[in-house]
Amino acid sequence: MKVKLAIAYDGTHFSGWATQPGKETVQGHLQKALALIFKSEIALYGSGRTDAGVHAVGQVAHFDLPEQSRMPVDKVAIALNTKLPPEIRVLSSEEVSADFHARFSAVRKQYTYHLCTTPVLLPHHFQRVWHHPQPFEMELLEKALLTFQGIHDFRHFSALRGNESAETSYERTIFRAEVEQDSGLLKIHFEGNGFLYKMVRILVGTALEAAKGKISPEKLSEMLSDPLSISSEQKYCAPASGLYLTKVTY
Amino acid sequence: MKVKLAIAYDGTHFSGWATQPGKETVQGHLQKALALIFKSEIALYGSGRTDAGVHAVGQVAHFDLPEQSRMPVDKVAIALNTKLPPEIRVLSSEEVSADFHARFSAVRKQYTYHLCTTPVLLPHHFQRVWHHPQPFEMELLEKALLTFQGIHDFRHFSALRGNESAETSYERTIFRAEVEQDSGLLKIHFEGNGFLYKMVRILVGTALEAAKGKISPEKLSEMLSDPLSISSEQKYCAPASGLYLTKVTY
Repeated sequence: MKVKLAIAYDGTHFSGWATQPGKETVQGHLQKALALIFKSEIALYGSGRTDAGVHAVGQVAHFDLPEQSRMPVDKVAIALNTKLPPEIRVLSSEEVSADFHARFSAVRKQYTYHLCTTPVLLPHHFQRVWHHPQPFEMELLEKALLTFQGIHDFRHFSALRGNESAETSYERTIFRAEVEQDSGLLKIHFEGNGFLYKMVRILVGTALEAAKGKISPEKLSEMLSDPLSISSEQKYCAPASGLYLTKVTY
Repeated sequence: MKVKLAIAYDGTHFSGWATQPGKETVQGHLQKALALIFKSEIALYGSGRTDAGVHAVGQVAHFDLPEQSRMPVDKVAIALNTKLPPEIRVLSSEEVSADFHARFSAVRKQYTYHLCTTPVLLPHHFQRVWHHPQPFEMELLEKALLTFQGIHDFRHFSALRGNESAETSYERTIFRAEVEQDSGLLKIHFEGNGFLYKMVRILVGTALEAAKGKISPEKLSEMLSDPLSISSEQKYCAPASGLYLTKVTY
C-alpha cells in the first residue's frame, strides 16, 4: 500500500530536506522514524527538496507500507510523531493509488515568503522571516511580482545545484505572485507548476531590489524575456529563513 | 534622566525575568548589556516578574541613565540590541519623569494566553503555546472567563512564591477575560489592575477544567466568592509556554 504523508517542519536547525551523511535532515529523521516503527529500511520520496533553514507547513512525501504491517494508515502519522523531534510533525497519513508519486505527480506548488519590515525584529520571528527594515516602495514590489506571473524562462532566477546537472528546461508557469500584509508581516505568496532551484528566494530578492528602485521595470522584464543576455549578472537571493513550502497540489 | 524601555522576549530558554545567580534571565541579560554600554553597573526595574518559559511582547522596565552619558535616549534601544541575544529585543527607549517606576506606576496589565487545540502541534508553535487537543465546550470556556471579570479575592487563583512572604491583599480587578480565535490558535486575553503570582496561568488552567465540565459554574463562582472554604483544593496551572505579557499601562 502506498502512503502519502503531509509534513510540517521548522527548518531552522536542519540541513534541509534531503538526507545527507552525518547531517540532521528532515528526510533523514523521517526515514529513521519509519525504520523504528516498521523494523525495516523504508525509502521516503518527497515532493522536492528544501534548503537548509527553509520551513514547510505542507510538504508531501510517500512511501510503500511494508506488506506485513497491520497498522491502519491513518495511525501512521500518530506513530511517526512519537519518534520525531517536535520540529518535525506529520500532519496526516493516507492511502494513495499505486501510481502516485510525491514528486512526479505534483501539478502545482505553493510557497509563502515572510518578511518583517519593522526596525526591530520581534524575538518570535527570529529565524522565521527575512528581517528587511530598509525602505522600499510597496507599489514597485507589487509591480515586480506581477511581472513574474505567466509562462517565462526563469533561468536567471535559479541557481545551479552543486551536485546536479543543469535543468533540461527553465520554463515554468507562475499562476500567482502576490504580497499580503498579515499579523505585522509581509507575506509574498507564490503558486506555480514548479520552481527551479532557489527560484522563490531569487524572485523575492530580485523583487525587493526592484522595490528599492535598484532594478528598473524594463530590466526586470528583460530578465524574463531575454535571460541569456544577462545571465552573468549578480543574483539577489533572499535568506532561507523566510521561506515556507505551504502546499503541493496533485 | 530616567529611561523607560519596552521589551519583547521569547522566554523559552530563560529562567524567567528576574536576575538569579548562575542563571540565564532576561533582566540579567539586559543589565549586562547596560553595563557594557555605560561602563558601570546599572539597576534595572521591571514592571513585574515573568516565570521561566513565559514570553513578553510588552514588558516595561526603567533605569537611571548615568549622568556622564551623552547617548540620545532613543538610541539606547538600538545600542542595547547590539549587545543582546536575538531572543530579547528592546522595542523602544524614551525619557520618563523622575517619579516614574516601572512596577509601582503601572495601573493596568494585559496578558494573552495562546492555546493550540488541533490534534497535531505545528512545529512553529512548539514552546510558544499550550498544546491542548482534548475536547472542551467553547461556551463553557467563555462563561468561565466571564465569571473572572470584576473585583474578586483571587487567592485561590495564585501560588505562593518560594522566597517571598504572602501577599497583603488578594483582591484584584479583572476588566477583560475573553477568548478569541486567531491564526489557528485560541487566544485568551486578560486585562487587570494587577495579577497575583501565577494567577493568569491558574485562571486559564481552571477555566479549561470548567470548559471540560470538570468544575461546575457554581463551584467556580464559589472559588471567587468564598475562597477560604476551598483554599486547600488542587490548583490547575496552565503551562508557562502559552503565556505572553502583552501590555503594561501607566
